[in-house]
Amino acid sequence: MQLASMLERAEALYPDRVAVRDADLTLTYSEVGRRVRSLAAWLQSRGVGPAVRVAALELNTAAYLEAYFACARLGAVLCPLNFRLSADELAFIVNDSGATVLLASPEFADTVAVLSKLGALPPTLLWLGDAPDDPLHAALGGASYSDALRHPPAAGRAPDFPADHLAHLYYTSGTTGRPKGVMLTHGNVWTHALATVAELGLSDADTWAHIAPMFHLADAWATFAITWVGGRHVLVPRFEEEAVFRAIEVERTTLSNLIPTMLNRLVRHESAGRRDYSSLRRILSGGAPIAPEIVREIMRVMRCEYVQTYGMTETSPYLTFSLLKEHLKALPPDEQFRFRAKTGRPCIAVELEVIGDDGRPVPRDGQSVGEIRARGATVTPGYWNRPDETAKAFVDGWLCTGDLATIDAEGYLDIVDRKKDMIISGGEKVFSTEVEHVLYSHPAVLEAAVFGLPDPTWGELVTAAIVLRPNTSATAHDLVSFCRSKLTHYKCPRAVHFLDELPKTGTAKIRKRALRERFSAG
Amino acid sequence: MQLASMLERAEALYPDRVAVRDADLTLTYSEVGRRVRSLAAWLQSRGVGPAVRVAALELNTAAYLEAYFACARLGAVLCPLNFRLSADELAFIVNDSGATVLLASPEFADTVAVLSKLGALPPTLLWLGDAPDDPLHAALGGASYSDALRHPPAAGRAPDFPADHLAHLYYTSGTTGRPKGVMLTHGNVWTHALATVAELGLSDADTWAHIAPMFHLADAWATFAITWVGGRHVLVPRFEEEAVFRAIEVERTTLSNLIPTMLNRLVRHESAGRRDYSSLRRILSGGAPIAPEIVREIMRVMRCEYVQTYGMTETSPYLTFSLLKEHLKALPPDEQFRFRAKTGRPCIAVELEVIGDDGRPVPRDGQSVGEIRARGATVTPGYWNRPDETAKAFVDGWLCTGDLATIDAEGYLDIVDRKKDMIISGGEKVFSTEVEHVLYSHPAVLEAAVFGLPDPTWGELVTAAIVLRPNTSATAHDLVSFCRSKLTHYKCPRAVHFLDELPKTGTAKIRKRALRERFSAG
Repeated sequence: MQLASMLERAEALYPDRVAVRDADLTLTYSEVGRRVRSLAAWLQSRGVGPAVRVAALELNTAAYLEAYFACARLGAVLCPLNFRLSADELAFIVNDSGATVLLASPEFADTVAVLSKLGALPPTLLWLGDAPDDPLHAALGGASYSDALRHPPAAGRAPDFPADHLAHLYYTSGTTGRPKGVMLTHGNVWTHALATVAELGLSDADTWAHIAPMFHLADAWATFAITWVGGRHVLVPRFEEEAVFRAIEVERTTLSNLIPTMLNRLVRHESAGRRDYSSLRRILSGGAPIAPEIVREIMRVMRCEYVQTYGMTETSPYLTFSLLKEHLKALPPDEQFRFRAKTGRPCIAVELEVIGDDGRPVPRDGQSVGEIRARGATVTPGYWNRPDETAKAFVDGWLCTGDLATIDAEGYLDIVDRKKDMIISGGEKVFSTEVEHVLYSHPAVLEAAVFGLPDPTWGELVTAAIVLRPNTSATAHDLVSFCRSKLTHYKCPRAVHFLDELPKTGTAKIRKRALRERFSAG
Repeated sequence: MQLASMLERAEALYPDRVAVRDADLTLTYSEVGRRVRSLAAWLQSRGVGPAVRVAALELNTAAYLEAYFACARLGAVLCPLNFRLSADELAFIVNDSGATVLLASPEFADTVAVLSKLGALPPTLLWLGDAPDDPLHAALGGASYSDALRHPPAAGRAPDFPADHLAHLYYTSGTTGRPKGVMLTHGNVWTHALATVAELGLSDADTWAHIAPMFHLADAWATFAITWVGGRHVLVPRFEEEAVFRAIEVERTTLSNLIPTMLNRLVRHESAGRRDYSSLRRILSGGAPIAPEIVREIMRVMRCEYVQTYGMTETSPYLTFSLLKEHLKALPPDEQFRFRAKTGRPCIAVELEVIGDDGRPVPRDGQSVGEIRARGATVTPGYWNRPDETAKAFVDGWLCTGDLATIDAEGYLDIVDRKKDMIISGGEKVFSTEVEHVLYSHPAVLEAAVFGLPDPTWGELVTAAIVLRPNTSATAHDLVSFCRSKLTHYKCPRAVHFLDELPKTGTAKIRKRALRERFSAG
């Protein structure tokens, strides 16, 4: 289960096929293979070998894909960095991982300089591109990518590593506490790639657009799965509507995974209705609930199948897909959209349970709520150097996801809340997402976050933070009345705070903990 | 990687779907799950637990499928027996495996009685059906299947076992020496099932007809893969044309694997042109070379895709499929048939090499011949209690298949011979299958086997054993002249022997060793 064997297969079966389109760069699988073997040999000449950690700070580029495979070949551990984090957070991660090499885009030289000042610059620095000849880059030193690619390539097949050999360290953005490094093994990533090939029917006819950032598993998994089947990679360095439309229309993208805000911006773009989507087969998304009407709208505009996904870094990432089971395809379209908008049914290579407060699986009634637990070959062995956190995350060998969901008679899950965001008010459970859904349906609401604040009488008080749409207005009283017309009384917010923006993590998740702290204090 | 989790998934997602059609028996996944848990509990009550060997002597039935999953659930090791073997051979296998339980069809009571006389009857006997009330069955004792199914079912999920936990022992029919038990682990079979789902696009829309015997991996792999995706199983207890046509037409089979003699009989059946094949998606076969014209004929008659496969028990089994790569689908039909008739390109989850005499991969020219070697998660850890045989089978972690092949520029392999069947005559290599192909193209030849006999001058002499078609005639001189018109001189047989039939193994492979012994002596 050596991840580098996936690229070796593509080199053998598709040597002359275009593997990568990255701006003006076009590479065949034979060329990518040669570059990866040069990069691996260069890294090896700098002391990189099995278990050595290599951090990467890079946009979506061919070089990132090559770095993933070069590290896999060496048995080294790639540690992708979220470039949206602060330098302090990045310094923490570099130090925590013990990375001795940093691969960085020349565009991030400022960040690298701050890391250097913070004493968190690893001894070896490789620019994943040609660094401009300026004082900033000169001061930092670092080799250029073209030098590394000129290194005589490593020969022969990659050595085989056991399935539990560490491949990646992904630091979770952590809405609470310090980031933790999720360990993923060659076996985890290998099995996940095979499962996605099976579930999504990936083949050499597919072209994947890397739009979500490659430092995140929302996209990184496709680096492996698409290579394995000899598919084509189109790199979109940064999300920008025109670049995505170009990837779809010109590069003939068949599949991609878009985070909900990206998808929203594409579907609402003024040119959305005039674009050529004829190559698209499936658009994946996830990370936030979606309404059946939105699924219908996406499928109408983009003329392809929409697949809601659910996963987490700890599970490589996918746990469910809202793909329709065969007999559901006979339902009326509206019923189909209802299933397509669900969190989804379990992915083939994982075992899932929804466990109630009594420690047993909840009834499959689409109503009873429990925590999702996962087991299987795609589940992390744990957190890097955090045995206590690892022990806390598992019960009887099952990973506790911290997500609360229902499961219906067809086996489709639907997430209702994060366990830690659930509010208990007057002894009743209130799922924050249910209240948020109602608030989002109000015409004046742009963003909504619902959370609990401590209260001596009720235990917790349901509280809402709201960002209004430009040129609209609504009072707290308006919104509470609106909620009362749609929700049981105890679920309605007791307090509404209006903000200019909501605090968010590097991956655009709302930081409810920050909201709780702010309004508890206030 | 617990194989029983596949059935648990089908129970959860497809509880009311028909899982199994076996003569008059129709079972949903919920029913199969319940029966498997009862069978597992019954076996457990008789001392079956992890690593205990359970032998099975059975036709293609629902009970066989249930036995596979019940043993998986317990972590026991199922040892499927080839019912075509002699009682002596079966006794050897039962004793070699150390099986303490025998699951047997009541139809095989005679064989079981002989095993008993040979002192090779395991202490626990379970009839996989209701044994008739006759002296033979009474003398043997044994519980009835309906009793086992009445046992209170085991509760909860199957315990998880490590990927290297032994799941199956398949004894290879062995054209030489005594049968060897090939060990397959949960990880081997699990990964193979996932790879076949990916390669063949298996889904809940599929119905698999179990036609090849389930004691053999040619069919047994589908027990797992088809269950995992919630597909339907149609059991054909014994090969018989009408039963197969019924499975296709009435049960709406979408996929099956047929051994070449079966496929041949179906395509040549007088009713073949009038049958309804509209449900068929793909027919798989393998184990013998096939000509492009035959592929064309099968696809014309059965109106579905033909897939040539190659594999061995030691690799769970598939190593290659002759599935067309995307860009080959643009070739003219004749060129496509040429690729479809090849041994195939590597299956996604395995690494393959074709290694020449110099120990290096042969050129990808479709001409140079080397031995196929395989590595990966579907490859056996070795032979049961045969460390020496295991050591001989591997070089640097690669399984040496003993099959000689070419590889072309597209990465498709084509087997030219078994290594041990290759003849060296006057210092020149002669691949027996090349000569056999020519002989098969002669109108009078029904069966042909080409082998080498020791010769003091030439090293080996090319020799042919021939079965003529009824009502035809040809002399040795005719056939040698025919070969000379098509082959280089040194490849042509120096001696031709006419026989009424060729000696074959239990799985219908020609026993060339027996031919060599017979004609060396003579």
